[in-house]
Amino acid sequence: MTGRLIGVGLGPGDPDLMTLRAARLIGQAQVIAYPALADGPSLARSIAAGLIAPGSTEIRIEVPMTPERAPAQAAYDLGAARIAAELEAGRDVVCLCEGDPFFYGSFMYLFARLAGRFEVEVVPGVTSVSAASARAGLPLVARNERLTVLPGPLPEAKLRACIEAAESVAILKVGRHLPKIRAVIEALGLTARARYVERATQAGERILPLADAPDDAPYFSMILITKGADPWL
Amino acid sequence: MTGRLIGVGLGPGDPDLMTLRAARLIGQAQVIAYPALADGPSLARSIAAGLIAPGSTEIRIEVPMTPERAPAQAAYDLGAARIAAELEAGRDVVCLCEGDPFFYGSFMYLFARLAGRFEVEVVPGVTSVSAASARAGLPLVARNERLTVLPGPLPEAKLRACIEAAESVAILKVGRHLPKIRAVIEALGLTARARYVERATQAGERILPLADAPDDAPYFSMILITKGADPWL
Repeated sequence: MTGRLIGVGLGPGDPDLMTLRAARLIGQAQVIAYPALADGPSLARSIAAGLIAPGSTEIRIEVPMTPERAPAQAAYDLGAARIAAELEAGRDVVCLCEGDPFFYGSFMYLFARLAGRFEVEVVPGVTSVSAASARAGLPLVARNERLTVLPGPLPEAKLRACIEAAESVAILKVGRHLPKIRAVIEALGLTARARYVERATQAGERILPLADAPDDAPYFSMILITKGADPWL
Repeated sequence: MTGRLIGVGLGPGDPDLMTLRAARLIGQAQVIAYPALADGPSLARSIAAGLIAPGSTEIRIEVPMTPERAPAQAAYDLGAARIAAELEAGRDVVCLCEGDPFFYGSFMYLFARLAGRFEVEVVPGVTSVSAASARAGLPLVARNERLTVLPGPLPEAKLRACIEAAESVAILKVGRHLPKIRAVIEALGLTARARYVERATQAGERILPLADAPDDAPYFSMILITKGADPWL
């Protein structure tokens, strides 16, 4: 009997926003895997820290943050091989993943390497988009409205077209792309409808009108645009 | 001192996918409000049933499902007035909401009526989109991919344009619109990339290739389209 591969969404950062199922699976896990910065901390592990059982085996996957994909791919190859060895030995492996595993989640890279060979369970989590809208007090979509989620590194023309074609928009991975994104939103006359949200539900959370957002935004920041004119009344 | 209005996302249906915070707030609540069908059951209450403390006050908001908006608006007016009376009396009110409160959630209608007058907390929840992708084993978006969420009642031309402009698409509220949506997806040559998901994580869950989906789909069904060619390796 081989073990089960379990991808667990941890939610947006506040450990209280983990699901009951995620918390239980982490607490019972004998083997836990998680991504970490090379020689640096693991945000995923820090969210789950209070639940990890003493004595559990930890597989730390150090992912280099480089513009090329090959170094990260090699890191996931290595991590997947270590996880596979545990699964082959009959032990379940709980893989920690910030947010939701299949929504820009690190677990997708392990899933792609292991799903064909082992039984898999994916535990969905609260996304950063849901967290940001909750913390900002900004309803996202109702009735027949459309929501589009866009990564900030996209080129200007793509951002513009996609922002125009939805009632609400969440732009993720803002970071150093903020000045470009801000210019697109301004040209569309939507600045007053745009909110900047940094590290929603985490220490250091900041929520600001887009006009007041810092040019040097961190990677974990987001812009929410809501055009709906109070359609909820 | 007035009470606090708390909108709690319950997640997609499996009570185990509630957040730790949602479960604790529900368990401690003296007053609970939730939407229900007129003379019918409340899905929201059924998800939370195991946590509601005996003796708590329940505000049941019966929402008529009619094509016109006025009857539902009147129901939310009435529900908001009953909630406001509790808040004025200094009691917190926990409002149960399927999925995520600000993502097509019923709580938005109460928020619009009460947020200006009372302190509000919104507890985000796991969306049906995250649940469906997890259950179907379908990674949604990675790297610089775009995700668009579309309601099924939208006209064909809008559906087509929005499906073309994203790497992954979730079409919600499919119901009787399934034949129209299926025709759009077929015309775009994306049928093989489309999965039908009914009641993800709930009793009666069904996951099928779009080609095998029933023409008489229920309201709580979804179509996921993923065009990304295994970009995770």
